[in-house]
Amino acid sequence: MNPTSSVQTFRAIDVIRKKRDGGELSRGEIESIVNAYTRGDIPDYQVSAWLMAVVLRGMTRAETAALTDAMLRSGEVLDLSSLAAKKVDKHSTGGVGDKTSLVLAPLAAVAGVAVPMISGRGLGHTGGTLDKLEAIPGFNVNLPVAQFRHVLDTCGCAMIGQTAEIAPADRKLYALRDVTGTVESPYLICASIMSKKLAEGIDALVLDVKTGSGAFMKSERDAAFLAELMVETGERMGKQMVALITDMDQPLGCMIGNALEVVEVVDILRGEGPEDLLQLCLELAGWMLHLGGVSRTVAEGKKLSEKLIASGEALDRFRQMVELQGGDPRAIDDPRKLPQAQHSITVSSQKSGFLASLQCEQVGTACVILGGGRERKEDAVDPAVGIVLHKKVGDEVSAREPLATIYYNAETHAARARQLLEQSFVITDSPLREKRPLIHRVIGKPGEKN
Amino acid sequence: MNPTSSVQTFRAIDVIRKKRDGGELSRGEIESIVNAYTRGDIPDYQVSAWLMAVVLRGMTRAETAALTDAMLRSGEVLDLSSLAAKKVDKHSTGGVGDKTSLVLAPLAAVAGVAVPMISGRGLGHTGGTLDKLEAIPGFNVNLPVAQFRHVLDTCGCAMIGQTAEIAPADRKLYALRDVTGTVESPYLICASIMSKKLAEGIDALVLDVKTGSGAFMKSERDAAFLAELMVETGERMGKQMVALITDMDQPLGCMIGNALEVVEVVDILRGEGPEDLLQLCLELAGWMLHLGGVSRTVAEGKKLSEKLIASGEALDRFRQMVELQGGDPRAIDDPRKLPQAQHSITVSSQKSGFLASLQCEQVGTACVILGGGRERKEDAVDPAVGIVLHKKVGDEVSAREPLATIYYNAETHAARARQLLEQSFVITDSPLREKRPLIHRVIGKPGEKN
Repeated sequence: MNPTSSVQTFRAIDVIRKKRDGGELSRGEIESIVNAYTRGDIPDYQVSAWLMAVVLRGMTRAETAALTDAMLRSGEVLDLSSLAAKKVDKHSTGGVGDKTSLVLAPLAAVAGVAVPMISGRGLGHTGGTLDKLEAIPGFNVNLPVAQFRHVLDTCGCAMIGQTAEIAPADRKLYALRDVTGTVESPYLICASIMSKKLAEGIDALVLDVKTGSGAFMKSERDAAFLAELMVETGERMGKQMVALITDMDQPLGCMIGNALEVVEVVDILRGEGPEDLLQLCLELAGWMLHLGGVSRTVAEGKKLSEKLIASGEALDRFRQMVELQGGDPRAIDDPRKLPQAQHSITVSSQKSGFLASLQCEQVGTACVILGGGRERKEDAVDPAVGIVLHKKVGDEVSAREPLATIYYNAETHAARARQLLEQSFVITDSPLREKRPLIHRVIGKPGEKN
Repeated sequence: MNPTSSVQTFRAIDVIRKKRDGGELSRGEIESIVNAYTRGDIPDYQVSAWLMAVVLRGMTRAETAALTDAMLRSGEVLDLSSLAAKKVDKHSTGGVGDKTSLVLAPLAAVAGVAVPMISGRGLGHTGGTLDKLEAIPGFNVNLPVAQFRHVLDTCGCAMIGQTAEIAPADRKLYALRDVTGTVESPYLICASIMSKKLAEGIDALVLDVKTGSGAFMKSERDAAFLAELMVETGERMGKQMVALITDMDQPLGCMIGNALEVVEVVDILRGEGPEDLLQLCLELAGWMLHLGGVSRTVAEGKKLSEKLIASGEALDRFRQMVELQGGDPRAIDDPRKLPQAQHSITVSSQKSGFLASLQCEQVGTACVILGGGRERKEDAVDPAVGIVLHKKVGDEVSAREPLATIYYNAETHAARARQLLEQSFVITDSPLREKRPLIHRVIGKPGEKN
């Protein structure tokens, strides 16, 4: 079709066709399409066709690593080699009530690991770390890189949002995927997550891949596939990797909503707080300390973490980080300094029995309806609203006993959230035969001595 | 993800996702995406993602018919019900040296069928009917609809290009498919062809689906699949349909290039010209007359066509149509009135033997290199240049005997075209065991009595 061109140059259409026909793209072809798109040299409509071909044809491990690498190198990669400590981060694929990052950053830091954490905002039914941090009055998630390093140097952890310099290809590609039905591909999800995380200049990464009714990956098979893909991609790029498949069939902990989740984080760091959240934090911290070379085994890492919580050192480190990032440290010790919703209502059980299940995505959506999350990226978030669960799956319930409290600022929102919440609780007459485990599987066990 | 919207409106992303996941789209969903895109209400990047999902997931017959219908109804549909004669057209999927349309329109018209023919231009290695017609000095393919009707009323046939009013959705979708690797889908090809052809207000359509080295569908299986799809789509829309799978493993006839092909058309209408071209014209004409109700059987239609060629009536009708559309009728009787290339060179055989095959796409590409076709839609075409074949597959060849003559205006083009042509001829020592048939199959035989 192009007989007059004798010089072979990159043509997007050739890369689209090759992937459409099920071919394996070379590293050069993947780099070319990513770089040309980031520079604005090829149009959205060609890239969206290519993305759909990737969604439906898949990618090999080599292609996935090449895509991750091209996206990573589209922007700045932090050089944290001047820090003596090993740099370890944790990433979760998103859930309801998942506030582990706020616990883990100071906890791992106080144990001697450096945690340069770059996080995202909530979207859809899931919350986001940045929104939770911003519920703390004054907390600044938009630090320049120099200040980010300063906080990291000073207290061993720092938590910011993605900067314009980090993986610009991912930002542009994600915006396009979001409107073209091309989000749901494990290969593209892997490249998006890993390109941003590896730009942090880390040595090791602990992945928390959620599965269940509140997760993006509803089935354990899909969650495990994504986890394996990310572990292998990270390992190909020379990082220590582990992925935990963890349960998101009900919210994690009891509080959902940004300020409420900060309260629960402080509870955990005080050695209080709900059992499931505490256990997951300890498990993830154990892995972070193990990969970070602080503890010989994961079990040792968990023990050390329990000790650092009991001693109050982890909470002190959290308070210090909050202060270094401009937040009001008094809000850590006095929840009344956090944003407060004006009203609350209680959702009570219609009958006696046992809580058999909790539609987790619906609970997340109820929080979005209250204003605590966003449907679209540009939506503002109300930090004060949210839901407190009084019962978790397996608990016994009496008729008229409170199941949850809704904290709200707008009546109309509360009515709709309440309706959704009421439908989310499934009460049965007999107790549960077996409970879903919190940790389903561990994938990739680099040098583990449990 | 969209809990606040209670009214269900069309969202392109939902249609993209449904097709991505292999679902069957409703007529309403297909109409919505086609209409919104034609109006400019949804962006290219969403439609290209949807098109790629269609390419890789396919469409059911009902979806294909709905897409064809939506594209057809995006513009004007000619109402030719005032004409007493049955309206019958022929469409070819494109080949090298295929000038049958110029023979068939006047031939079928003089037999008593109305032929409202709306054609395209050449692209890639294949020629286009409009380019061939425009080789006739003065011939106007851009008639307004009123004048198109006048020509059709007067001489029973008229040949124009697509107007802005006809199937605007196809024009916009085709331009996008062309740059996003989404051309090669039988469902999309079917909808594109059928929406334009049915906009002509025809009663019946004879399809000439090419297969072989010079066709877009190289394999007979792919050609037959497309043919069945188009026949069924046309029948679902109440039209009489037949498709002939015909050979395009070597050029049709001996002349390739716009003015040269007009010369060969006149030869055929004079009862002369190459056997393969004559036979295909008679076969297609037989079907047009049969579907048009003029002849009881296809065989009768062929006989009548032979008679109308022998009597000179078909040539007279061609001359009349040329004159009605502003063309110089003297060019029909005197080839020197057609554009003439300045130079010619001969490609001769290196050895004695038999012509075993002719790389048909390469011959077409050689003509494009000479300037006789276009690589890009916006390229201008030189009507004078082209190639005359002196040997066809199966012919005996002596060493140094001419295989082809190249007619050209630029030396550099001629050298490259010559090189390509030389590579296209495959000469073997022994004669061919069997020849590919001209007509491979007939698909859909509406009321055929052969």
